[in-house]
Amino acid sequence: MKKIINDPNAFVDEALDGILAAHPTMLKAVSEDRRAIARADAPIEGHVGIVTGGGSGHLPLFLGYVGAGLCTAVAVGNVFSSPSPEQILAATRAAHGGTGVLYLYGNYGGDVMNFDLAGELAAGEIETDTVVGIDDVASAPPQRSSERRGVAGLFFAYKCAGAAAESGASLAKVAVAARSAVANTRSMGVGLSPTILPAAGKPTFELGPDEMEIGIGIHGERGVRRGRLESADRIAADLLEKIAADLSLIRGDRVAVLVNGLGATPLEELYVLYRHVRRDLDGMGVVVRRTYVGEFATSLEMAGASLSVMRLDDELTRLLEAPARTPFFRE
Amino acid sequence: MKKIINDPNAFVDEALDGILAAHPTMLKAVSEDRRAIARADAPIEGHVGIVTGGGSGHLPLFLGYVGAGLCTAVAVGNVFSSPSPEQILAATRAAHGGTGVLYLYGNYGGDVMNFDLAGELAAGEIETDTVVGIDDVASAPPQRSSERRGVAGLFFAYKCAGAAAESGASLAKVAVAARSAVANTRSMGVGLSPTILPAAGKPTFELGPDEMEIGIGIHGERGVRRGRLESADRIAADLLEKIAADLSLIRGDRVAVLVNGLGATPLEELYVLYRHVRRDLDGMGVVVRRTYVGEFATSLEMAGASLSVMRLDDELTRLLEAPARTPFFRE
Repeated sequence: MKKIINDPNAFVDEALDGILAAHPTMLKAVSEDRRAIARADAPIEGHVGIVTGGGSGHLPLFLGYVGAGLCTAVAVGNVFSSPSPEQILAATRAAHGGTGVLYLYGNYGGDVMNFDLAGELAAGEIETDTVVGIDDVASAPPQRSSERRGVAGLFFAYKCAGAAAESGASLAKVAVAARSAVANTRSMGVGLSPTILPAAGKPTFELGPDEMEIGIGIHGERGVRRGRLESADRIAADLLEKIAADLSLIRGDRVAVLVNGLGATPLEELYVLYRHVRRDLDGMGVVVRRTYVGEFATSLEMAGASLSVMRLDDELTRLLEAPARTPFFRE
Repeated sequence: MKKIINDPNAFVDEALDGILAAHPTMLKAVSEDRRAIARADAPIEGHVGIVTGGGSGHLPLFLGYVGAGLCTAVAVGNVFSSPSPEQILAATRAAHGGTGVLYLYGNYGGDVMNFDLAGELAAGEIETDTVVGIDDVASAPPQRSSERRGVAGLFFAYKCAGAAAESGASLAKVAVAARSAVANTRSMGVGLSPTILPAAGKPTFELGPDEMEIGIGIHGERGVRRGRLESADRIAADLLEKIAADLSLIRGDRVAVLVNGLGATPLEELYVLYRHVRRDLDGMGVVVRRTYVGEFATSLEMAGASLSVMRLDDELTRLLEAPARTPFFRE
């Protein structure tokens, strides 16, 4: 896969330069190295701040969810690498409007370690709480669900926690909204082709010309099954079956559905997947209340897709429907 | 490139099934074969209808621009193939709110022929006018600009004509807005890898492992130059130079800029491109008033990007800033 880049080692900083130049009324750098970025009007006095972060290469994750009704600030790591505690601390200070900060990010070792360290650095100055996304059902069995990775379903946690923060809810209540979203969300993906890190120049993994990998992670982590590429309907049914079982979905449940592209897969194909997911959910008597189809959490130019489902209650529905506005997402 | 599809010949209809199932409050099918699709509230009594259309495989082009403040209806062809006159006629009837319909689409032979035929079929029943997008500077020299292809810059024409129609302007005035946008817009693209049509299963063209093609079309049409893949900055400078010369941009001009991904290219890379485009425009003393970065007109999973620039006057600025809402675009 060829890339439109300059010096591979400058890739992340140059992309950030472009983003800040493109959206100066919505985003601002809040650290010397420009790796901590906040919504332009942060901090919002009296509102809980939400800080996220992680490696680059997943746009619109993570930076794309910084804005009104979503996250307040982000710490931006190198490609597929965690941001530093200092970068997270800078984002924390920029997000703190006097009522504390929620850390909300995906469950990866380096991110957990560095967010925890940042929280310790902020202790005494800023109250923090932490919720991690653990939606990827392929990454650990149900009895070890706390070890699961966070993938595209993190969007639902951002949306719900962000709506709570925007309404002026307390840190405890914003954390409850995030935890409720996480507890009710499951995801699973399929990879068709690998991605290449700009600085490495080599594929993160190999797949045969007719192969797919079910359960793949957004950094190319091994999935649960590798095999011959199947039809869209079979893939959709397979992903949904695992998710529905893990969520214990039953007739009458209301859900939000997200079909996410991992990078190279055309939007048309995502809708072909959605078609079958929707038919199966209709068949199960599960009511789809909100649908999202597009690129929400990518892996550079990986071909593939993921399915995320969040079970809704009245409160989560209300939070999902609230307005939001970033350069990358509008509701 | 592997695909998430079922029967390749059902690809377009299944994608449409998914789109209509996902967005039932915003879109509706208005022909038996579901290849004519309109915004859910069409026709809007007393408002000019805008009908677009073309081949599939370019989402969000064309269907993605059907909604409030943009187009009223679309005729959807097979992958890279024109819709039929009958499908365009069905879209025309669905869009007609009593004050006529503007046909607004890209300049491709089959589309021109079939829209013209649809206009003849509608004659006596519905007044129509036609504006075609001709923004691709690589596809013909300035003295033959009317032969140029329409690519991502068509978005600007949709946005401006759509805003005029939404405000209740007459057919003549909506056509003036579209013509003004077209006259002030230029685009040029670069391709890094080919696309594969689902039903054909073979690449539309071949490029060596280190090659790029400057000036490529969104169906893989030959560009103006094929050579070794250059840096993002060189590509950006090259695309902008051709566009700026063709538009005769001068110091003090105000512009809107669109950096468009052709399918597989990560959003991060599009922002790296934008970074240099913006620096060059700043250096020329050209003022960037609006920026759009993302996938606006794709070619399935082609890797590559295009740059579009529209010179702004007060009226075009006002039309660009007006609200718009479709399942694929919100302003």
